[in-house]
Amino acid sequence: MVPRYARPAMTAIWEPESKYRIWFEIEAHATQKLGELGVVPESGPKALWDWWKTDPKIDVAAIDAKEAVLKHDVIAFLDWVAEQVGPEARFMHQGMTSSDVLDTTLAVQLARATDILLEDMDELLAALKRRAEEHKYTPTIGRSHGIHAEPTTFGVKLAQAYAEFARCRKRLVAAREEIATCAISGAVGTFANIDPAVEEYVAEQMGLSAETVSTQVIPRDRHAMYFSVLAVIASSIERLAVEVRHLQRTEVLEAEEYFSPGQKGSSAMPHKRNPVLTENLTGQARMIRSYAIPALENVALWHERDISHSSVERFIGPDATITLDFALARLTSVVDKLIVYPERMQKNLDRMGGLVHSQRVLLALTQAGLPRDTAYRLVQRNAMKVWESDGALSLLELLKQDPEVTAAMSEAELEDKFNLDYHFKQVDHIFERVFG
Amino acid sequence: MVPRYARPAMTAIWEPESKYRIWFEIEAHATQKLGELGVVPESGPKALWDWWKTDPKIDVAAIDAKEAVLKHDVIAFLDWVAEQVGPEARFMHQGMTSSDVLDTTLAVQLARATDILLEDMDELLAALKRRAEEHKYTPTIGRSHGIHAEPTTFGVKLAQAYAEFARCRKRLVAAREEIATCAISGAVGTFANIDPAVEEYVAEQMGLSAETVSTQVIPRDRHAMYFSVLAVIASSIERLAVEVRHLQRTEVLEAEEYFSPGQKGSSAMPHKRNPVLTENLTGQARMIRSYAIPALENVALWHERDISHSSVERFIGPDATITLDFALARLTSVVDKLIVYPERMQKNLDRMGGLVHSQRVLLALTQAGLPRDTAYRLVQRNAMKVWESDGALSLLELLKQDPEVTAAMSEAELEDKFNLDYHFKQVDHIFERVFG
Amino acid sequence: MVPRYARPAMTAIWEPESKYRIWFEIEAHATQKLGELGVVPESGPKALWDWWKTDPKIDVAAIDAKEAVLKHDVIAFLDWVAEQVGPEARFMHQGMTSSDVLDTTLAVQLARATDILLEDMDELLAALKRRAEEHKYTPTIGRSHGIHAEPTTFGVKLAQAYAEFARCRKRLVAAREEIATCAISGAVGTFANIDPAVEEYVAEQMGLSAETVSTQVIPRDRHAMYFSVLAVIASSIERLAVEVRHLQRTEVLEAEEYFSPGQKGSSAMPHKRNPVLTENLTGQARMIRSYAIPALENVALWHERDISHSSVERFIGPDATITLDFALARLTSVVDKLIVYPERMQKNLDRMGGLVHSQRVLLALTQAGLPRDTAYRLVQRNAMKVWESDGALSLLELLKQDPEVTAAMSEAELEDKFNLDYHFKQVDHIFERVFG
Amino acid sequence: MVPRYARPAMTAIWEPESKYRIWFEIEAHATQKLGELGVVPESGPKALWDWWKTDPKIDVAAIDAKEAVLKHDVIAFLDWVAEQVGPEARFMHQGMTSSDVLDTTLAVQLARATDILLEDMDELLAALKRRAEEHKYTPTIGRSHGIHAEPTTFGVKLAQAYAEFARCRKRLVAAREEIATCAISGAVGTFANIDPAVEEYVAEQMGLSAETVSTQVIPRDRHAMYFSVLAVIASSIERLAVEVRHLQRTEVLEAEEYFSPGQKGSSAMPHKRNPVLTENLTGQARMIRSYAIPALENVALWHERDISHSSVERFIGPDATITLDFALARLTSVVDKLIVYPERMQKNLDRMGGLVHSQRVLLALTQAGLPRDTAYRLVQRNAMKVWESDGALSLLELLKQDPEVTAAMSEAELEDKFNLDYHFKQVDHIFERVFG
Repeated sequence: MVPRYARPAMTAIWEPESKYRIWFEIEAHATQKLGELGVVPESGPKALWDWWKTDPKIDVAAIDAKEAVLKHDVIAFLDWVAEQVGPEARFMHQGMTSSDVLDTTLAVQLARATDILLEDMDELLAALKRRAEEHKYTPTIGRSHGIHAEPTTFGVKLAQAYAEFARCRKRLVAAREEIATCAISGAVGTFANIDPAVEEYVAEQMGLSAETVSTQVIPRDRHAMYFSVLAVIASSIERLAVEVRHLQRTEVLEAEEYFSPGQKGSSAMPHKRNPVLTENLTGQARMIRSYAIPALENVALWHERDISHSSVERFIGPDATITLDFALARLTSVVDKLIVYPERMQKNLDRMGGLVHSQRVLLALTQAGLPRDTAYRLVQRNAMKVWESDGALSLLELLKQDPEVTAAMSEAELEDKFNLDYHFKQVDHIFERVFG
Repeated sequence: MVPRYARPAMTAIWEPESKYRIWFEIEAHATQKLGELGVVPESGPKALWDWWKTDPKIDVAAIDAKEAVLKHDVIAFLDWVAEQVGPEARFMHQGMTSSDVLDTTLAVQLARATDILLEDMDELLAALKRRAEEHKYTPTIGRSHGIHAEPTTFGVKLAQAYAEFARCRKRLVAAREEIATCAISGAVGTFANIDPAVEEYVAEQMGLSAETVSTQVIPRDRHAMYFSVLAVIASSIERLAVEVRHLQRTEVLEAEEYFSPGQKGSSAMPHKRNPVLTENLTGQARMIRSYAIPALENVALWHERDISHSSVERFIGPDATITLDFALARLTSVVDKLIVYPERMQKNLDRMGGLVHSQRVLLALTQAGLPRDTAYRLVQRNAMKVWESDGALSLLELLKQDPEVTAAMSEAELEDKFNLDYHFKQVDHIFERVFG
Repeated sequence: MVPRYARPAMTAIWEPESKYRIWFEIEAHATQKLGELGVVPESGPKALWDWWKTDPKIDVAAIDAKEAVLKHDVIAFLDWVAEQVGPEARFMHQGMTSSDVLDTTLAVQLARATDILLEDMDELLAALKRRAEEHKYTPTIGRSHGIHAEPTTFGVKLAQAYAEFARCRKRLVAAREEIATCAISGAVGTFANIDPAVEEYVAEQMGLSAETVSTQVIPRDRHAMYFSVLAVIASSIERLAVEVRHLQRTEVLEAEEYFSPGQKGSSAMPHKRNPVLTENLTGQARMIRSYAIPALENVALWHERDISHSSVERFIGPDATITLDFALARLTSVVDKLIVYPERMQKNLDRMGGLVHSQRVLLALTQAGLPRDTAYRLVQRNAMKVWESDGALSLLELLKQDPEVTAAMSEAELEDKFNLDYHFKQVDHIFERVFG
Repeated sequence: MVPRYARPAMTAIWEPESKYRIWFEIEAHATQKLGELGVVPESGPKALWDWWKTDPKIDVAAIDAKEAVLKHDVIAFLDWVAEQVGPEARFMHQGMTSSDVLDTTLAVQLARATDILLEDMDELLAALKRRAEEHKYTPTIGRSHGIHAEPTTFGVKLAQAYAEFARCRKRLVAAREEIATCAISGAVGTFANIDPAVEEYVAEQMGLSAETVSTQVIPRDRHAMYFSVLAVIASSIERLAVEVRHLQRTEVLEAEEYFSPGQKGSSAMPHKRNPVLTENLTGQARMIRSYAIPALENVALWHERDISHSSVERFIGPDATITLDFALARLTSVVDKLIVYPERMQKNLDRMGGLVHSQRVLLALTQAGLPRDTAYRLVQRNAMKVWESDGALSLLELLKQDPEVTAAMSEAELEDKFNLDYHFKQVDHIFERVFG
C-alpha cells in the first residue's frame, strides 16, 4: 500500500483495530448460538456482549505483544479478550479453529471493501453518463490503429467506456458474492466439534452466506476469482486512461486533464501540461492486475489447507482494494473535469482532406455496379495521393477528376458521400442501448 | 498448442476451414438481412446461399496465397468467395468492416469451445460425485500444513473438489455469456453504413447476443474476463492434481493414479510408479493460467481499436481452450480410475498415537471448568511427548497418567474423546449441501 | 506456436527428428566414454556410431507408436534404436536416467535457439545503427508524457534503441550460459551408477559445460532466468514497436511502416495505412513476456524433481524462442524499411510556437539573477498563452512584450535562446558513447 | 509493504527522509561540478554544502505541504531547500530535469538495497554450507515425483540448494550493475543544458556508472531485468521452502522447523507443529515474483518517457526489496535452526523393502548379458510385489527366489547390489564442485 494512493474509508477496513472488532463479533455471535444450542452456558455469550456494550478500546499493542510470544495471532487475541472479560470468556471459540475466524473476517473485509468499490463505480458511471450526454453529438474522428478511420462522436466514445464499466460493475457484484461466505466448520471442515447451525447463524449476522463446504479454510478459488475481477477492472481503467493520454498528446490535443492554478508540469520546462493523472492510473492498473497472479497461485493449497495464502493476502487484500478505490476515484475526477476541445476535434477531423469518407464512396461505386475490387482500387489510388499530401489535397476533388469514377457517379452523388451527419444517425439508437 | 495435449473436437474449432466456414455464414446472414432491408438486391444473398448449398470445399491454400499478396485476410477470403460465386458476391460485406467478421467469428469459436468445456466439466463433476459417494464414509486423516489435524472422510475431500468445480462450472457459464456477442457495427462502431438490424439478425442466427456498443471491435474486457475464468479453473485443476500427487507420495500412498500393464515408470528404476498424469496437469495449469496476463494486457487498445490483441489471440484462443479441454478430460480420467487404499488411510490415521483427538480433550477440559489456557497446556505437554515418539506413545495413555488431567476427567470420559465416528456425524449434512 | 509467426530454421530445432538426433548423440557419446572407462565393452559405442554413420532416417512414427504402449518416451526411443543397432545397443544408457538425456537435450536446443536469436539481434543492431547514422542530425521533437518537451534528433532516438538492444544482447549471452549445461548424474544426481567423467565428456562433445550439481534434473532456476531474459527482450521490442506506432499516428506521421504495392490497409476503408507490423509485434511481446511466469513457477519442483516442468516446457521452449526469432526479424525489417519524414518532423517541431525553448529562457532568467520561482512564473504565464492558442501565438514574441522579462533579458538574448542547433551539440558525444 | 515482513535497515532506505537526503546529494554534487565548469558561481555549491554540513533535519511534512499545492515533488523539494539555503540555492538544478534526480535516486536506493540483499545472501550461503557439511554423509532417500528413487545424502540436498543460491548471488551482482547507473542528461537526454561531465561527476560521487544514453529517464529495461532477477531468487526461496514443508509432513518428518517453547501451533489442536515459516516464505515468494510483471510492462514507455512507471515503482521498489530481505533472513534462520532427524531418514530409506536398489540390479543383469528389456521386466515384476506389499516384502529376497534372475546372478552378486555406501562414493567430488 502506498499512502499517496490510499483513501481513508478503504484504508480503515484494513487497520488492525477493524480486524479485531470483526474477530470479536464473529466469536461472540458463535458463542451466542452455542449458548442457544446448550453447548455452552448462556453466561458465556452474555459476558462477551456485556463487555462489548461498554464500547471497549482494542489494545492492539497488547495483543501484538502476546503474539510475539505465542506466535499465533488468534490465540493472542483470545487471551487478551479473556483478560478483559473474565473466566466466562473460556466459552469462546469452542469447537472452532483459527481459520474460522480469519477467513470469515477476510470475507467481511472484502465484502465491505467491495461495497466501497461499488459506490466508486457508480460515481464513475454517473460522470461518464453526464459527459457522454454532454457530447452526444460532438463530432470527432474515430481511429483504428491510431489512424483516422471514420467520424464518430465524443459522446459515443464515452458511451463505450460507460458500457465497459457497467459490465465491470456487474462483474464486481458477482465477485462480491464469490467471497462473501462464512466458514465455521472446525479444524478440517467436518463440523466435528461445532454444529453447522453456528455457521449459519454467524453468516446471517455478518451479512454473509454459509460456505457450501470448507476445508480448514474457505477455498481459495473464490479469492482467485475475486482478484481476477479486480484485474479486469484495472485493465478497463487503463484503457480509459490511455485514451485520455492519447487525446492530450500535443499533436492531437482533443481533450486535457484539468490543470489547476499553481500546478507545475515540469521542473525544467515551464510550458508543460502533462496527463500525469492518467499516466499514474496506467501504472496503478499494472499493479492491481499483477495481484491476480499470486491469488491464482494460492488456489492449490495442500490437502485441507496450508497457510501459504496468508502472507499473499496480507499484501493483496489491502493493496488491491485500496489502490483500486483510489484509482476509480481518480478516474472519476479525471472524467468529471476533463477539458474537451470540440473545435480541435473538428480540426483533426478535417485534416486528412476528406479521406474519412473513403468507405462511403467505395460502397456507392459497388452499388453503382462496379466490382468491389475495382471500386477499391479506384478509391485507393486517389486516397493515397491525399495521404501523401498530408491532407493538403482533397479526396472529393480528386475523385471528381478521375474519369473512371465519374463514369460511375455524378458530382452530386459524390458530394453527398462527404456529409458528416450521415455518420451520426444511429447515435441515438446506441445511446438507448447503453443508457436504456 | 502442443499436439499431445490436444483432442480432435476442440482442435477442429480452431482449424482454418472451420474459421472460414463461420466467416461465410456471418457474411451470408448479413447479406441476407441487407437484402430484406432492400440495401442490396435479393439476388445477392441468394447467390451466396445457392453456392453454399453445394457444400463447397474451402480451398485454404488458395485463400492463403491471396493473403500473401494482399496482406489482408478478410479481403483475401472475400476475393476467393467472389471467384466461386460470381458477380453477385459484390453485395457481401456491404457496410461491414473486417473486424465485424473476425470478432464475431472469435465469439462463435469461443462459445463452441466453451460448450465442449462445459461437457468436460459435467463429466468431471459426475466422476467426482461417483467417487465421493463411494468413499462417503472412508475414514482418512485431514491435514493442515501437511501435518495431521483431525479425521475426515475421503468422500468429504472429494465433495470439496466437487463443490469447487461446481463453482467453476457456474463461472464458465458466465464467461460464455461474456464472450458470446456479435458486433456488426462498421468501421468505428457507429453503424454508419449498416443498419443495427443486421447485427441483431446475424447475432440471432449465430446463437449470440448483439454487443451493446462496439468500437471497431468487441471490447476486450470481455475476453480478459473469459481467459481469467479459464485461469481460475486451471488453478482448481492444479489443486486437485496436487492433492493426488500428495496422496501418492511413497510415505503417504493413500491413493494412486492408475498404472497400466506395460507401463514403465522410469527408464532407470524398474520399481517406480509416478503420479505423472497429475504432475503433467500441474504444468498445464501453469500454462492456462499464464494466458490470462496477455488477455488482460489486450484490454487497453488504442482509441477505437488497435490490432495488437490479434496476435495474442491467435495463440491463446486455441492454446487455452485446447489445453483446458485436454486437462479436464485427463483429470476426469484420473479421478475415475484413481486407486484408493482405505487400509493405508486407516494406517496413516492411526500412526500418530491418537494425537488427532487432542482438540476434543481440550474442549472437554474447558467444559470441565479449566481455563482454556490451562487446558491447552495440559494437552500440549502430553501431545508433544507423543509427537517426539513419532506415534510410538499413545496420547490416551499419557493423559490417563497425568494427574492434572485425571483430576478433571475420568478415564471413561477420556476414552470417549478418542472415538473416530464422532467426527463423521455431519458428513451426511455436508453431502446434502454439496450434492443437494 | 502459431505457424504464421514462425521461421523455418528456428522451428527445425524443435521438430521431433531434431530432438531424437540429439538424444542419440548424447547416448552415443556417453556410451563412448563408458567404453573408454571400461564400464561397457568397446563394441557397444562402436555399434552405435557405425549405425549412425549410415545416416539413418529417424522413424518418428515408429517411436511414437512404442511410446503409446510404454508411456515413456526415452524407453520407447531406446527400444527403437536397439531394434536398428542390434544387441550391442544394450550398453546404451547404462547408469543414466531419462532426464540426463532430456535435460541435456533441452540445453542443446535452447543453446542452438539462442545462437539464432543472437544472429537476429546482430541484424537488428546493424539496422538500428545504419538508420541512426542516417538520421544523426535529423531534428525532431522530443516528447515526455506524449507532450512536446525539447528538440532532439531522430538519430538519437534510434541510438537509444540501439543501446537498449545492445544491453539485451549482453543479457542473452548470459542467458545462454545459464542454460547451456549438461547433466549426466543418474537418478538423483549422485553419480551412483555413472562416473562424473561421462558427464564432462558429453558436455564437451555437445558444446555445454557440466552442471555443478544436479538432482535428477538440471535445476529450473536456470530456465526461469533464461525465459525472464526473453521476457525483457520482448518488452524492449514492444517499446520500439510502440514508438513506431506513435510516430505513424495520423496527427504525428513522422515515420511509417513500409506499405507494399498491392497491400490493402482495410477491407472497408481504402484510405488506410496502418502500422500493423508493430501492432502485431506488440501482441507477440505480450505472449513472450507471459511465458516467464510458468517458467518461474517451474523452479520449485518437489525434492529431487517432479515432472510438472515438462508440460510447461513443451509449450514455452518452442513458443518463446520461435516467436522471439520471428519478432526480432520482423522488427529488423520494420527498422530497415521504415519511411522517415524529416519535413513532417520539422513541422511538428515548429507547431507549438516555440514552447520547446521554454527551459532555456527559464535558465537564462535565473542566471540573469531572478529567483528560480519567479523565473518559472514568468515563463509559464507566457507559455500557457501559447499553449491555449495551440501554437498560433509565438512564445518569443510574447516574451519580448512582457516587461518583467525584458527587464532581465534583451531581445537579442531572448532570440538566442530559440536556436535549434543549441540542442544538438552533444549528439556526437552521445553517438560515441553508444557506438564507440 | 507489510510491516511484519519488513526489517529496519532495508525499510530505512525507502523512507522519505532517505530519499530527500539522496536528492540533495545529487543536486549538490551536480551544482559542484557546474561551479567547476564555470556554469554557475562557486558560491552556489558552497552555500549548499555549508548548509549540509550543519546536518540539517529534513522537514518531510513541510515538503509534502508544498507538493500538495505544486503537484510536483521535485519542485516542492527545491523550494524548501531554497528557503533553508537562501538565494544561492537558485543555482541548483540548472539544466537538469526532475527525472535526473528521481531516476538517479532510485538507482542509489536499489543499489543500496541490493547491497543488503547480497549480505543476506552471504548469510544464507554460509548457513547452507555449514549444514551441508554437517550432513555430508547423512543418508536419506532421494525422491523423484514424490516417490522414492535412490539414496542420496542430506548434505548433497543442501549442496544443491547452495549451488542454486550461489547462482542467484551471481545474478544479483549482475542485476545491481544493471540498475546502478546515473542519468543527468536533461529534459530529453540530449545534454542540451548540461554538460555530460556533470553526469560523470555525479555518477562517480554516488557510486554509480554513467548511463550510456538516456531519454528523459533511465531506460526501464534495466529495472525490468532487476525485478526479474528478484523473481528468480524468490522462486529459489520457494523451492527450498517447499522442500522443508515436504520434509516436515507428518508421514515424512525427516526435518522440522524450530518450534520455540511457548509457541502454539494451532488454536484448536494442541498437538500441532506446523511448518509455518516456510509456508509463509512460499507466499512471500509468490508476491516477489508477481512484481516482475508490472516491471516488464513498464519498459514500453511512450517516446522519450511517460510517467506510468512511477506509480508502479512506488509499490515494487520498496515491496520487492523489503520482502526479499525479510524472506532471505527468514530462510537463513530456518536453515540455521532446522531440526534434522537422521534416524527418521534412515527409517524412511528402509521402508520400501529395498526397492531403491532396483536400478543396480537392472544394470547388473544387463551386464550379465540379458537384453535391457528383459532385465527391466524381471526386476519390475519383483519390484511391483514389494510395492504392493507397501514394503513388507523384500526385493532382495524375492529376487533370490526368481529363477530367471538367479540364472544370471548369484546370491552374493545380488546382495552386493543392496549396499547403501555404493551411492555415496561421489559425494566428495560433488562437494568439491560446489564448495571448491
